[in-house]
Amino acid sequence: MLEYVTAADDPRLTDYTRLRDVELRKSLEAERGLFLAEGEKVIRRAVGAGYPIRSVLTTRRWLASLEDVLGDATVYVVDDATMTGIAGFPVHRGALASMERLPLPAVETLLEGGARLGGCVRRLLVLEDLVDHANVGAIFRCAAALGVGGIVLSPRCADPLYRRAVKVAMGAVFSIPYARMDDWFEGLSTLRKAGFQTLALTPDQTATPLDTVALSERVALLLGSEGDGLSSHWLQEADEAVCIPMSGEAMAAGVDSLNVVAAAAIACHGLMRST
Amino acid sequence: MLEYVTAADDPRLTDYTRLRDVELRKSLEAERGLFLAEGEKVIRRAVGAGYPIRSVLTTRRWLASLEDVLGDATVYVVDDATMTGIAGFPVHRGALASMERLPLPAVETLLEGGARLGGCVRRLLVLEDLVDHANVGAIFRCAAALGVGGIVLSPRCADPLYRRAVKVAMGAVFSIPYARMDDWFEGLSTLRKAGFQTLALTPDQTATPLDTVALSERVALLLGSEGDGLSSHWLQEADEAVCIPMSGEAMAAGVDSLNVVAAAAIACHGLMRST
Repeated sequence: MLEYVTAADDPRLTDYTRLRDVELRKSLEAERGLFLAEGEKVIRRAVGAGYPIRSVLTTRRWLASLEDVLGDATVYVVDDATMTGIAGFPVHRGALASMERLPLPAVETLLEGGARLGGCVRRLLVLEDLVDHANVGAIFRCAAALGVGGIVLSPRCADPLYRRAVKVAMGAVFSIPYARMDDWFEGLSTLRKAGFQTLALTPDQTATPLDTVALSERVALLLGSEGDGLSSHWLQEADEAVCIPMSGEAMAAGVDSLNVVAAAAIACHGLMRST
Repeated sequence: MLEYVTAADDPRLTDYTRLRDVELRKSLEAERGLFLAEGEKVIRRAVGAGYPIRSVLTTRRWLASLEDVLGDATVYVVDDATMTGIAGFPVHRGALASMERLPLPAVETLLEGGARLGGCVRRLLVLEDLVDHANVGAIFRCAAALGVGGIVLSPRCADPLYRRAVKVAMGAVFSIPYARMDDWFEGLSTLRKAGFQTLALTPDQTATPLDTVALSERVALLLGSEGDGLSSHWLQEADEAVCIPMSGEAMAAGVDSLNVVAAAAIACHGLMRST
C-alpha cells in the first residue's frame, strides 16, 4: 500500500526520525520494538529471516527494486529532500524498512538449539560489553561466514539490530542465532551447565595459543570490550585463557594488540578447525 | 619554538587545511611531501621511526604531554576554535604533527631486507588496489602485530600515510616496512625473482584452504580490493589460489564473504604458522 508523504515531520514517519542520534534511536527503537533495515539487500534478508515489516520509507526511484518483497506492507514514498529531512542525512541506499523485533530466545534455548535455531550449537561466541555497533556487526559477519553456531551477548553489549551493526554485518545479524544474558555475574555458569568449554581470549601472551588448545565438543569463546578486554571476573571463571600469538618485535614497537574484529576473525577461524 | 597563531586562515597553518577533504589533502600532501600524525601517541611513534617533524599544531592544554618529543620543531599554538576552524572538525586528540615523508625503498630493496628494513623478509602481504584508507590502516596493524615482514602496494593502492590510515593503524604504518610497485602488470615477477611463493587469496571455495598449503621459505600473500577482489591477471599469475573455508550454510544465506580486514587477519595468522 503506497502512501505519498511530503513533510519530513509527518507523524507517520516517526519510526525514521534522526537516524544518527544514537541516544534518541536507542530509546525510540526499544519503546516501539522496532529496528531499521537499510537498502534493498538488507531488507530482503530481514524479511527472509522472518521479521515482519512495520513500514518502508523510500523514493519513487527505488520502488521497483523492492516490489516483490513488500507484500501488503505500508510504503511511504517521499522525495529525496524529505528523506534527508527525516533521516538527518542523505540515505544513499534509497530505502529504509522499519521492522518488528522478534523475541530473543533465552540463552538456554539457544544452546539447546533445535531446527529453528540451526541445530545443536557446538561453537559459540560470547561478547562481553562491546560498545561499538560497527564492531558487533563485523563480528556477526565473521562468525556467520565462518560457521559459528550462535552468539551470546552480555547484558550491556551493544545491540546487533542497531542500524549501523545491521549495515556492517551485511544482514548477517539475521542469519546467526543470538541471545542476551540476563545476569552477567552468573552468565558463564549457564554455558558450563550446557557442557561448553569456556575459552577467554586475551592479548596476554603468557596464555595458551588458541591453535594449540584441545577443543571440546562444545566450545564458547569469550571476547572482551574494545578498551579493557574481558573483565577479571570472566577471565577467572573461564576454563582457560587463550591468546593469538603476536610478534615480539611488534610488541616492542608498541603495536601491542589486534583490534577486536581482527582478533575475533582469527579466533572464529581457529574454533572451526576441528569441525 | 612556539608560535602563537590566532587566525584559522594564517598561511603558516596551511599544512593542516581541511582534514576531511580527501581530494584536497591528497594533492596537498603529495606536493609538499608531508603526512599528518594525530595525537601524542602516534606523533611519538612517527618520530621514533625517524620521520622528521615539519611542524606541530596544538593547543596550550596538550603542550606539556608533547614537550619531550618536539626537539626544536616549530609548534603552532592555537585555541580550540582556531584548531576546529583550520581542520574542519574538532580535533579530539589535541595535537597534529605535519611530518616529512621519507623516500620509500624500491620493492627489490624491501625484499632484500637488511638491518634497517628488519632483516630478510620471509612473509609478505601484497595489496592490490585497496581504496579504503581505514582498511589499509587496519591491515597494517594486523600485519605488524602478527609479525609479517613487509607490505608491497600496487600502484593504485590507497596511501598508508593518509591520516585516517595512520590513525586506524595506531601507528603500525611506521613499524612495518613497505614499498610501492611501479608496474602493476609485471609486479608479481619481481616477487618471483626474489624467490617468493605467491598465494592469491580469493573467496572462491574451490581454491586450496590456506591452512593446508605447504608454505615455502618465502611467501607473499596477495589481497584484492574491497569490491572486486584480485584482478584476474594476478589470480592467474599467482602460484596458487588459496581461500579461507567458509560455512556452506552462511553462503546459502547470502553471507558470502568476509570483509577484507577479517580475511587479512586470518591470512596473516595462517602465514605465520610455520615460522
